[in-house]
Amino acid sequence: MNIKVIAFDADDTLWVNEPYFRASEERFCELLGEYASQHELERELFKIEIENLALYGYGIKGFVLSMIETALKVSGNTITPDIIEKITDLGKQMLNQPIEILDGVEQVLQAVKDKYRVVVATKGDLLDQERKLKRSGLGDYFHHIEIMSEKDDANYLKLLKHLDIKPEEFLMIGNSLKSDILPVLNIGGHGVHVPYHITWAHEQIEDSIDNERFRSVERITEILNYL
Amino acid sequence: MNIKVIAFDADDTLWVNEPYFRASEERFCELLGEYASQHELERELFKIEIENLALYGYGIKGFVLSMIETALKVSGNTITPDIIEKITDLGKQMLNQPIEILDGVEQVLQAVKDKYRVVVATKGDLLDQERKLKRSGLGDYFHHIEIMSEKDDANYLKLLKHLDIKPEEFLMIGNSLKSDILPVLNIGGHGVHVPYHITWAHEQIEDSIDNERFRSVERITEILNYL
Repeated sequence: MNIKVIAFDADDTLWVNEPYFRASEERFCELLGEYASQHELERELFKIEIENLALYGYGIKGFVLSMIETALKVSGNTITPDIIEKITDLGKQMLNQPIEILDGVEQVLQAVKDKYRVVVATKGDLLDQERKLKRSGLGDYFHHIEIMSEKDDANYLKLLKHLDIKPEEFLMIGNSLKSDILPVLNIGGHGVHVPYHITWAHEQIEDSIDNERFRSVERITEILNYL
Repeated sequence: MNIKVIAFDADDTLWVNEPYFRASEERFCELLGEYASQHELERELFKIEIENLALYGYGIKGFVLSMIETALKVSGNTITPDIIEKITDLGKQMLNQPIEILDGVEQVLQAVKDKYRVVVATKGDLLDQERKLKRSGLGDYFHHIEIMSEKDDANYLKLLKHLDIKPEEFLMIGNSLKSDILPVLNIGGHGVHVPYHITWAHEQIEDSIDNERFRSVERITEILNYL
């Protein structure tokens, strides 16, 4: 291996993210409890989120708009304005959430920062991700932060062009097989999967991966044995 | 002048944007007409947009969330769900708006594309700006698209570092003196102002600019005389 750039996914790789979405979803289900069961609400919200994904993209603002749309739909437009207000407040709380850095992250960044060019490659809202990176105090470890509207083959190829490196010089580390690993392996890069205990349904895949440029580790610090 | 990179602002420089926000705002005021006058509604919406700017950033999704918050506030949480739905629909219409390229833009891009590195430097939601660039058919003119969470001195300096050029090799073209011109002049770059007939209040400034690296033109094609 001749890795030149190591890219880290951000949410649920560097810091806690999905649990905050889940907590908001639970609160959303409580607020709408009189209209449908938690299971039905979660299913409807997920459906609307996916329908809106091409239009809204990833991130908290789109999630809030999808919660509002779901609330209107399941209530047959009878929801009270107070509940709409509580949903927008949920979004603001999420945007203001303190950053909780995951175990081992700083140790890994400290160990790789001088030997490699280290970047963040993430989806989501630009401003929100910049704010989280700033709040995390990890900003100085990174050469730059790349926000991608979708983590697909084409966008990773663009990133490589932009970084001016060959695919085999690129290593992506992340918790999503679908977004962080498969497209990177497709274009000839290396991928290390660090699973997180919760994954959004949209990021889940059924495949098992057999590829010599792929590793899965239980803890992020195990990457250091692999490099 | 030894310009190497020409950066174009996108909204209201390459294509029509602000009139769609104004049209949505007018429709919003009609929807809320029973609660307040158009003038009061516009003032309240603007206030809430500015309060939310640090949290939501620029773009349509934040605008929609601010319209909803304004509707809840001016109605004292008595607004009907139908109106909330109409507001979210307004946002979706805006996101699906066809692109209307401004006069002279293609002529200018055609003339500069081989002599300079040409980029887009814009605020707003990443996905939405990427989509607009794609729909515009102008994508091939640009080396890359840079989405900035805020167009301030620090972010322009980052862009220059990223483009690996000196400030005096950078020319920014845009309709906002506040976002496209002043910070660029501050850091030593060149700025050409191409006014658009409507400007969002937040982008308006009182200053008159006297700087040898600054020009104001009436039509974007006049840039070609200046280069």
